Amino acid sequence: MTSVAHLVEKTTEFVRDHVFPVEREVVADGRVMDDALRLELQKKAKEAGVFGPLSDPRYGGLGLDTRAQARVLEAAGASLIGPLAVNAWAPDDGNIHLLAHVADPEQQQRYLAPLAAGEVRSAIAMTEPAPGAGSDPSMLRTFAEETDGGWVINGAKHFTTGAQGAAFTICVARTNDGPTMFLVDADHPGMRVGRRMQTLDHSSAPGGHCEVVFEDCEVPDAAVLGEVGQGLALAQVRLAPSRLVFCMNWLGLAVRGHRLAIEHIGTRTGFGAPIAEHGLAQGLIADSEIDIAAARGLIRQAAETIDEQGPASSQAKHETSIAKTFVSEAVWRVLDRSVQLHGGLGVCEDHLVARFLVEARAFRIYEGPSEVLRWSIARRALRPAR
Amino acid sequence: MTSVAHLVEKTTEFVRDHVFPVEREVVADGRVMDDALRLELQKKAKEAGVFGPLSDPRYGGLGLDTRAQARVLEAAGASLIGPLAVNAWAPDDGNIHLLAHVADPEQQQRYLAPLAAGEVRSAIAMTEPAPGAGSDPSMLRTFAEETDGGWVINGAKHFTTGAQGAAFTICVARTNDGPTMFLVDADHPGMRVGRRMQTLDHSSAPGGHCEVVFEDCEVPDAAVLGEVGQGLALAQVRLAPSRLVFCMNWLGLAVRGHRLAIEHIGTRTGFGAPIAEHGLAQGLIADSEIDIAAARGLIRQAAETIDEQGPASSQAKHETSIAKTFVSEAVWRVLDRSVQLHGGLGVCEDHLVARFLVEARAFRIYEGPSEVLRWSIARRALRPAR
Amino acid sequence: MTSVAHLVEKTTEFVRDHVFPVEREVVADGRVMDDALRLELQKKAKEAGVFGPLSDPRYGGLGLDTRAQARVLEAAGASLIGPLAVNAWAPDDGNIHLLAHVADPEQQQRYLAPLAAGEVRSAIAMTEPAPGAGSDPSMLRTFAEETDGGWVINGAKHFTTGAQGAAFTICVARTNDGPTMFLVDADHPGMRVGRRMQTLDHSSAPGGHCEVVFEDCEVPDAAVLGEVGQGLALAQVRLAPSRLVFCMNWLGLAVRGHRLAIEHIGTRTGFGAPIAEHGLAQGLIADSEIDIAAARGLIRQAAETIDEQGPASSQAKHETSIAKTFVSEAVWRVLDRSVQLHGGLGVCEDHLVARFLVEARAFRIYEGPSEVLRWSIARRALRPAR
Amino acid sequence: MTSVAHLVEKTTEFVRDHVFPVEREVVADGRVMDDALRLELQKKAKEAGVFGPLSDPRYGGLGLDTRAQARVLEAAGASLIGPLAVNAWAPDDGNIHLLAHVADPEQQQRYLAPLAAGEVRSAIAMTEPAPGAGSDPSMLRTFAEETDGGWVINGAKHFTTGAQGAAFTICVARTNDGPTMFLVDADHPGMRVGRRMQTLDHSSAPGGHCEVVFEDCEVPDAAVLGEVGQGLALAQVRLAPSRLVFCMNWLGLAVRGHRLAIEHIGTRTGFGAPIAEHGLAQGLIADSEIDIAAARGLIRQAAETIDEQGPASSQAKHETSIAKTFVSEAVWRVLDRSVQLHGGLGVCEDHLVARFLVEARAFRIYEGPSEVLRWSIARRALRPAR
Repeated sequence: MTSVAHLVEKTTEFVRDHVFPVEREVVADGRVMDDALRLELQKKAKEAGVFGPLSDPRYGGLGLDTRAQARVLEAAGASLIGPLAVNAWAPDDGNIHLLAHVADPEQQQRYLAPLAAGEVRSAIAMTEPAPGAGSDPSMLRTFAEETDGGWVINGAKHFTTGAQGAAFTICVARTNDGPTMFLVDADHPGMRVGRRMQTLDHSSAPGGHCEVVFEDCEVPDAAVLGEVGQGLALAQVRLAPSRLVFCMNWLGLAVRGHRLAIEHIGTRTGFGAPIAEHGLAQGLIADSEIDIAAARGLIRQAAETIDEQGPASSQAKHETSIAKTFVSEAVWRVLDRSVQLHGGLGVCEDHLVARFLVEARAFRIYEGPSEVLRWSIARRALRPAR
Repeated sequence: MTSVAHLVEKTTEFVRDHVFPVEREVVADGRVMDDALRLELQKKAKEAGVFGPLSDPRYGGLGLDTRAQARVLEAAGASLIGPLAVNAWAPDDGNIHLLAHVADPEQQQRYLAPLAAGEVRSAIAMTEPAPGAGSDPSMLRTFAEETDGGWVINGAKHFTTGAQGAAFTICVARTNDGPTMFLVDADHPGMRVGRRMQTLDHSSAPGGHCEVVFEDCEVPDAAVLGEVGQGLALAQVRLAPSRLVFCMNWLGLAVRGHRLAIEHIGTRTGFGAPIAEHGLAQGLIADSEIDIAAARGLIRQAAETIDEQGPASSQAKHETSIAKTFVSEAVWRVLDRSVQLHGGLGVCEDHLVARFLVEARAFRIYEGPSEVLRWSIARRALRPAR
Repeated sequence: MTSVAHLVEKTTEFVRDHVFPVEREVVADGRVMDDALRLELQKKAKEAGVFGPLSDPRYGGLGLDTRAQARVLEAAGASLIGPLAVNAWAPDDGNIHLLAHVADPEQQQRYLAPLAAGEVRSAIAMTEPAPGAGSDPSMLRTFAEETDGGWVINGAKHFTTGAQGAAFTICVARTNDGPTMFLVDADHPGMRVGRRMQTLDHSSAPGGHCEVVFEDCEVPDAAVLGEVGQGLALAQVRLAPSRLVFCMNWLGLAVRGHRLAIEHIGTRTGFGAPIAEHGLAQGLIADSEIDIAAARGLIRQAAETIDEQGPASSQAKHETSIAKTFVSEAVWRVLDRSVQLHGGLGVCEDHLVARFLVEARAFRIYEGPSEVLRWSIARRALRPAR
Repeated sequence: MTSVAHLVEKTTEFVRDHVFPVEREVVADGRVMDDALRLELQKKAKEAGVFGPLSDPRYGGLGLDTRAQARVLEAAGASLIGPLAVNAWAPDDGNIHLLAHVADPEQQQRYLAPLAAGEVRSAIAMTEPAPGAGSDPSMLRTFAEETDGGWVINGAKHFTTGAQGAAFTICVARTNDGPTMFLVDADHPGMRVGRRMQTLDHSSAPGGHCEVVFEDCEVPDAAVLGEVGQGLALAQVRLAPSRLVFCMNWLGLAVRGHRLAIEHIGTRTGFGAPIAEHGLAQGLIADSEIDIAAARGLIRQAAETIDEQGPASSQAKHETSIAKTFVSEAVWRVLDRSVQLHGGLGVCEDHLVARFLVEARAFRIYEGPSEVLRWSIARRALRPAR
């Protein structure tokens, strides 16, 4: 067995033994997914040797390439809170990647090290209420004015994932030299985490999706991440791997839902035959098998491209856009079929598939709605012809 | 304006003025949809002259044929709780129909009159936990043993819609002479309403979907609804109109979600143009227009067939099966597109479309899952060839 | 039986007894669908009393409203050449409608009377090779220059349906006062019918889809149909009914293909059971039943709107666009499933479904491709919001 | 550049320079795809060093593993007759594979050597008219009776691909010891190639799909391929690679159709903008990009499994079933969109995409219809649960 196959096996066992029981409490019994619970799970993941599939060994991570991440995170994704348990959940996954690529040594020491080690969580404040930046980052309105040796940030954000309880937030703001990223500590004056939004995906993220306000928030030059004016380029560096990690995690959940459906219909009969022998039920099973296999193939291909051509390459951008579009829709279909195969029980929240479906809905919107991605895929495909 | 068109207009106004405000409290602010609230809404509906689209005038209803019901209930369905406000929500809608067709005069007086007038709610206890009757009614295990002048019922039910707070429950049980329906009062010894199931659709039904146990529940002969051994035939009488009322109500909600999406994108811009001018957003809008028009056409055709050939006719069964299958899936697609068109806000529960989508999921399962309906549609279509 | 129901029955019998045998010769044995054959079939249709569902009684037609046409033409459409046999095939159907609405009495006498009576065929020359008018009529390049008492037309057309052997062609050309329609006789100097295009739909149209060139083609003022500059408005008058007639005809063919599939699988077994009992085959049958019912509902609704609000009303335009989009795609799906249910024989041209599928492909493009129609449907739906 | 990448490039160039011109003559101008033409093309392929991607070097082939075949055959598939030109078209592809795995040395010398070298063509006579073996091989009725030192075969076959002009035919027949494969020479008494069936795919196969009759056809023991009674097991050895080669070839054609569509809309405008900027056209392009990428991923995965676990492994069977189902449907969708994007020209046979679409229809049926494959995929997936 290769070491990756071994890691996949260990991750599968860890999730089954240590995460599934907690997941049931969170999903069906209302246990709150807070940082205490996260730390408890991550401690067990460390003990099991499966912590940190996205992190460098120097921060206690597993040091995997993207191809290996794909296999390990599909295993972790078998539970809604499995990726969090191994420290590969949004937005920390993308922030770890971003900081590893563009933070200076001091920033890496201060922000990346504790984040990659699971000691803290982080947030990224990008999306803004209309008429600010939603899917279109060029509409950014939050503004950072340069002062003597620093910056003053003003603006409002929402859908700031993980903001409650985050040790720091990466704020994307316009400057006179273009969009720029700033590292802002949790207790920093002028940044206020507001209301947690009532989103459908409330089981999986300890920090929620929040409103965040920057009001005369003064930060020093050292808070600039990467270069001034390079905020959107940096967002691109973060985007391809982040989208693909989403795909890996959610594919794992789709596989789990599919298996739950297979187990469920294996125990039921109706109309004179086991449900598993009814052709239309078999059709749903087959379609999910096909969706899962195709999703896995697209993730694998994009992972290989990231490893070989880099996360900011044009080909990586194209392939992760394709993977995100297909996988987010395929996951939705697979989970929807799993609900359907459970019959009435499929819409009961104490059966996990109901909650999985609801939690998955946002995946077709976050990090690029399918329509925006299709548009960008088409424009790239049409480029040679114009 | 015809009187039906006038009633549609009045219903639309009533829902907009009196139901929408309450709906927001229920969906976004956690107000509980209980009987007090139901009675408050129904009182207003009576004042507005829009109460009782399914009831006979002698019980305070509007005395509409099925075609007229289709138009009025689409208007009422604009709110998740609109149909309840006019007394056309499951399971009372089907029970009103059933009692009107098969109850004896005394039963009509005692059960139908207060139900049709909105004074009380009812339940129907049909579905059973495995290995009992789910989609396949022939698997019924709840048993009623004949005694001297009465019956003793034993068995377990679940998904008994509306059971909490229902004045009476129609229990379907096997007897030695075949499946039979029994009317059981709320306070009757031996019937116990248990746990309310944690279903995804929790905003719209005051009585929930419950577990109900019958334990040596003795009822007199007068409790038999229709004839002994005719329980499944009676269920068929109830089924076609009940499925179609579901279609009418949910189509109304799909139209509402579609309009909310149209309004939403009318106010947004991105990538240099109003969202309403982006082709892929237009594609979603067009697909929903088509789905809605097709759903309406199928409902109308089936309503006409019920009016002309009767609710238990073979043609009515075929057409309502077709309508239920298409409409439940079309409603799901329309609401899903509406969520998608709202972008991130689409998955926030304080935007109604998120909640609409989640509530609608069960419609593809209740009263016949799509797969069971497709199977029955096909077998009817294949009959001539075999 | 109503007189419409009676006419439907007679049309069904006529098609079965007189058209099906000829269809097989045309489709499977290569008999050419020429005017001799058309006249032979139409003669029989007249004898059977089913000729002219689109024509006025004064021209030997049946004088039906659009709703009745829908039912009769679905029956005629059971054969690929059934609509032609009753004189309701493109482009004559639309031209009959157009001339009935806008031609002056002399033009009606000269052009409409023989066309409606089936004595002659006609063509309409609208579409042009790029960069002329394709889906976008505003790109019209064919130009008619006003002279003393007449016009000189120059330009190239293609996809001129029915041009070979047509007694006259309606040419749409730009003038200095806007697009205008001209009636041009077959033998008129300056109009040359060129190559018949090698389209996939070659069994059903005696006159083909042709290239037509106008070279200094002089016509008198009397050749103007309707008013100068009103060409596009007149095209709109023609468009809604013409699209709907397409829908009626092709729905009939889809129903036929569906029935052929039902018959076929009724005689076959595989894997230990009749094919008709295999769930996935049943799923295809059910989906086609649903598609057919939905298509019929949309046609009926649009027909009613044309009858009540007129063919050029905004509502008729919207509903026929919706109907055309859905029906053309539903017909395609139904025929595709029928092919699939025939197994290997489904792709043999001596089994009719193979040919039906190929012939149907153009229906999703002619008279407005689905994408253009979706775009226009969406813009109409979005109008209130902007 | 790896040697495989170099071979892909050479194949691409060969197809573009030598096959495209011939393809146009065959598809649009009616040139007959006969053996003279096949030999002419294969001669050029040999000169270009791209002949024999499925054959062993000892027979003049390229000696590629399945992964490399996938890339090379996608390149060859860019033309409808490209795979034939490099000797990788059905049924010779599967027969080469089969003979290489199970023929004895003498049979390899006599049958495999000239076949792999392109000197001759072959056929496989498996499918029978009802009530014989169609999709279900267990229904085989052709019977081989054992005689002294040989066999006498009787039975009727159809859809015998490549039969006209084939040097030999592999006949699958029942014996008292189970289904068995026999090698029968073209001129062998008792085997008669009958009617060429009028299938939709008539441009690509020199030998057609034929009816073949075996009438007291005597063959010696040496004609048995593999072991007596192992005919269905041998068919399985052939099946997985054969399905996957189909996928590779047709994916290549889908990519070509997609590129033709991209080129086409790159030159057109409508409604005030280039077609390439219309959102709904972009949506079609994006969907095809996604379909193509997903298809490629599934082929690659299945190819790897064949290489690593063998063509008859259970995993190879599962993955090639999934690939065949998805790819055949994705190819159909991509070609259908390409037609749609061509507008009216898309249904003209002198534009290649029209013909590509029609030719591709059978791919969803041959070598396992989608429904039969879905059924087998589901049963494999459900096995653990039962």
